[in-house]
Amino acid sequence: MRILILGGGFGGVYTAMHLQRMLRREKDIEIALVSKENYFVFQPMLAEVISGSLGLFDPIVPIRHLCPNVTLYLGEVGEIDLKRRSVRITMVQRTQPLDIAYDYLVLALGTVDNFGVVPGLVEHGLHFKNLGDALVLRNRLIHTLESADIEQDPQVRRALLTFVMAGGGFSGVEAIAEINDFVRGVARRYPHIDPGEFKVILLQGGPRILLELPEALSLYSQRLLARRQVDIRLNALLKAVTADEAILGDGTRIRTRTLIATIGAAANPVLTALPCEHDRGRIVADENLEVPGQPGVWALGDCAAIIDSKSKERCPPTAQFATREAKCVAANIVATIRGGPKRPFSFTALGLMGSLGHRSAVGQILNRFKVSGIPAWLLWRAIYWSKMPGLNRKFRVALDWTLDVVLQKDFVFNDAAPTESIGREHFEAGETIFRQGEIGDRVYVIVEGEVEALRTDASGSDRVIARLGPGECFGEMALIHDAPRNSSARTATRVNVMTLRRSAFNSLFTYLPALRESFTQMVEQRQAGESSTSRSGETSAGG
Amino acid sequence: MRILILGGGFGGVYTAMHLQRMLRREKDIEIALVSKENYFVFQPMLAEVISGSLGLFDPIVPIRHLCPNVTLYLGEVGEIDLKRRSVRITMVQRTQPLDIAYDYLVLALGTVDNFGVVPGLVEHGLHFKNLGDALVLRNRLIHTLESADIEQDPQVRRALLTFVMAGGGFSGVEAIAEINDFVRGVARRYPHIDPGEFKVILLQGGPRILLELPEALSLYSQRLLARRQVDIRLNALLKAVTADEAILGDGTRIRTRTLIATIGAAANPVLTALPCEHDRGRIVADENLEVPGQPGVWALGDCAAIIDSKSKERCPPTAQFATREAKCVAANIVATIRGGPKRPFSFTALGLMGSLGHRSAVGQILNRFKVSGIPAWLLWRAIYWSKMPGLNRKFRVALDWTLDVVLQKDFVFNDAAPTESIGREHFEAGETIFRQGEIGDRVYVIVEGEVEALRTDASGSDRVIARLGPGECFGEMALIHDAPRNSSARTATRVNVMTLRRSAFNSLFTYLPALRESFTQMVEQRQAGESSTSRSGETSAGG
Repeated sequence: MRILILGGGFGGVYTAMHLQRMLRREKDIEIALVSKENYFVFQPMLAEVISGSLGLFDPIVPIRHLCPNVTLYLGEVGEIDLKRRSVRITMVQRTQPLDIAYDYLVLALGTVDNFGVVPGLVEHGLHFKNLGDALVLRNRLIHTLESADIEQDPQVRRALLTFVMAGGGFSGVEAIAEINDFVRGVARRYPHIDPGEFKVILLQGGPRILLELPEALSLYSQRLLARRQVDIRLNALLKAVTADEAILGDGTRIRTRTLIATIGAAANPVLTALPCEHDRGRIVADENLEVPGQPGVWALGDCAAIIDSKSKERCPPTAQFATREAKCVAANIVATIRGGPKRPFSFTALGLMGSLGHRSAVGQILNRFKVSGIPAWLLWRAIYWSKMPGLNRKFRVALDWTLDVVLQKDFVFNDAAPTESIGREHFEAGETIFRQGEIGDRVYVIVEGEVEALRTDASGSDRVIARLGPGECFGEMALIHDAPRNSSARTATRVNVMTLRRSAFNSLFTYLPALRESFTQMVEQRQAGESSTSRSGETSAGG
Repeated sequence: MRILILGGGFGGVYTAMHLQRMLRREKDIEIALVSKENYFVFQPMLAEVISGSLGLFDPIVPIRHLCPNVTLYLGEVGEIDLKRRSVRITMVQRTQPLDIAYDYLVLALGTVDNFGVVPGLVEHGLHFKNLGDALVLRNRLIHTLESADIEQDPQVRRALLTFVMAGGGFSGVEAIAEINDFVRGVARRYPHIDPGEFKVILLQGGPRILLELPEALSLYSQRLLARRQVDIRLNALLKAVTADEAILGDGTRIRTRTLIATIGAAANPVLTALPCEHDRGRIVADENLEVPGQPGVWALGDCAAIIDSKSKERCPPTAQFATREAKCVAANIVATIRGGPKRPFSFTALGLMGSLGHRSAVGQILNRFKVSGIPAWLLWRAIYWSKMPGLNRKFRVALDWTLDVVLQKDFVFNDAAPTESIGREHFEAGETIFRQGEIGDRVYVIVEGEVEALRTDASGSDRVIARLGPGECFGEMALIHDAPRNSSARTATRVNVMTLRRSAFNSLFTYLPALRESFTQMVEQRQAGESSTSRSGETSAGG
């Protein structure tokens, strides 16, 4: 008999831990867990990785440590077949997908970031959800400081030294507080950066940040962050993002190279496809956390819509609830196997807390007591530390917190990740993609929108020499001839492009004869147009 | 006045540190350093990152901590113009290269791995040179264990559980010793892996490992590693590498998915291009470490050919020598600026030591005393610890060494790095690239060699349906139609291919009309061939 748990977050891992304990004497029941990573992330501490208060591996625990008797499948959940009771997973290092049959199924897949809601966010926004994101973010901050330190252009400096977070919930506030502490903390190591140049901006769609907390605590948090020079923009909606700007609903344009978003959580598409009841994308579970009409299938955590059996209120998507739901699911599965009564789920939140960086936090305990400042911060650390699974990690975290007081902040970055050779970029209308005379490092293919090619003549005036639309390329001339851009490119409308970096373009151009021919033809046509330009006004748009 | 140092290793960083101290009162002399990373790697401790004895950031120190008054340029050295006294560097996050003028130039660019010496090594070999490499290697090991734990195919299990190091010098031996300790140490966490399945193999071209040491110590090391189940192959040359095999000079084929190489160090091509004297790719320096005929240009470290002014022997490419050369270069630059006599370089090595993993090491001190075992290991740690620059780091390293004794080994991995969408693969003759019926995740373009497409009929017999050569594609059918491979692909000769992963191929296919047309044509031709196959025997090779 196999119990299959999908998801390696709080819901999935805690269900596995409870089941493993309850079923330790049953030799013929296999507990299997599918997770994308072989570790569990203790989410509340992720923000501290950005600033280096915690080491990179501190907020994570190997799942095999927590659940030594659980079979772990590292992979992505593909298709769930409820009729045949089988789940298809695709695994790294294997080209063949694997079908895993189950007797009981636990859905704990959480949510996915849906950056599609804002144009340009997919292309230029940074996530803050898992460990990889925290690492990417940390590396980006350090890289940005390094670049700013030697940058002369004041416009570019400003974009480099402005950090924007879209989303004023717990996760967004904790992250921006840590980013603020970090950049201001290490600034003195960069001789050409004046801390006054930093802009750290928090965008919140609602009328105040941390809407989950009572108003007094929200206002306290806003005052505290403002004192630490975080620029909070309330009722501010992110409308579009480009490589250099964040554009707000009221038309404000913020020059920035670093935009992080904690908005747009959406249901996992694998679950949306299931033939069962959904509530705003979430799987509806009954009071025993079982999926109605699907005996043997349970749902919990952020991917499930659960109504508390006592208060009749909707359960919030927090770690606190997910871990209690996990215990209930585990108990109900065991009850089903052994033939006992299932118990309905009910839980009252013990409180809510959020860290605000540098020895401060806010929170509300047992829905009555409000805490803030250093006491709240100490409480925050004490609570989360006690909740961390795994003794090893507890020890490391305690140590790193201690060291953080005595040691200097680190700011080394690690660039193991290669630059993606095929990328996407988004531009708003009227933006310059590149300028004549610049060195080119990529080719553009228009996916949506229109781009104008401009030639600047000796007198300095610009002239449109071509208009390009979807499917057309530009920028290839500079790469083929290894020469500076021979024209500028400017967007006529909102534009999405696919980009090929130099190395990728060179490989494709060299080894794919079909591609080479079509490019050579295009270049010849453009050059033919070029040579007749003095007469006809038509000319090359190859960039 | 500007002193420009190229290279962020021992030679470059120590020169910067010495110059900064010697010139601290000179306000009009700028010391600038160009480095690819913003941190300095303490190489001798890199191997311990693999096994997790040291934390990821332990062996590195921010260059800005070590040289707070030095201007740091993060980038790659492009062209060095000795006539115009200017160096061009390309920087991340900037499309324009930067030209930096200098009055004095220090060349300390070390060497680069030249994997081109062995077919397939570029495509499938892992490096072990910098921090990124150590991280990639660690992640690979963990990923491999995770895959092996659920793999059923005995052939694949064997390839997954075999780890091969090519190169029996200090760096190769230290790394393979740590790998051996690591995989055997965490094996008990993987319920379906039997430690007896591991094969850890060290390939050494010479008659014994650690040729730099006296024979007795080499033999001691070999015995110790053999006792720890490292399979040492002496006089073994790596002849070719594929995704699944390492092929030796005598024809032996070792099935492995993890091959690391510390062979093939070559001169940095930027330096090879310089119009000055070279000795096996290295820049020849005179006894004052100045480059003959180029006043004001110095060379040191692994990229320089230096003869000791007293012993008249060639200086070895070790950290010990590089740091002493750095001091001499700094002194001679200061002497040149202030008009004093330059001093010739001379240094006698204090000894040589290498770690052998798990509380053991070997070494020779002052060319006379041989040490081995636990005393050598303690000495190794004491010496390298005392040599580590930066107090912060010293503290962290001491701490992590202490914790390593009490805490369990970690085996979390971090997969922030996206899979490269355009890759290269190498196959030897007669290998199967994919089999009919498999799920396809990439398209192949032949760069060199010949590939046969095979169709297996109902009776199970294979028939060659096409032979493909350079510039031709295969495997696109499975991606375009999202279906299993409709034929097998086998190499007729030694073959190099470029691969496009599904996501990259889909992007290109969707947005590049020229490419789409040529592929559609090819598919049509192949399908036309296919439909006439029953008559003519010609058929589709689209995979």
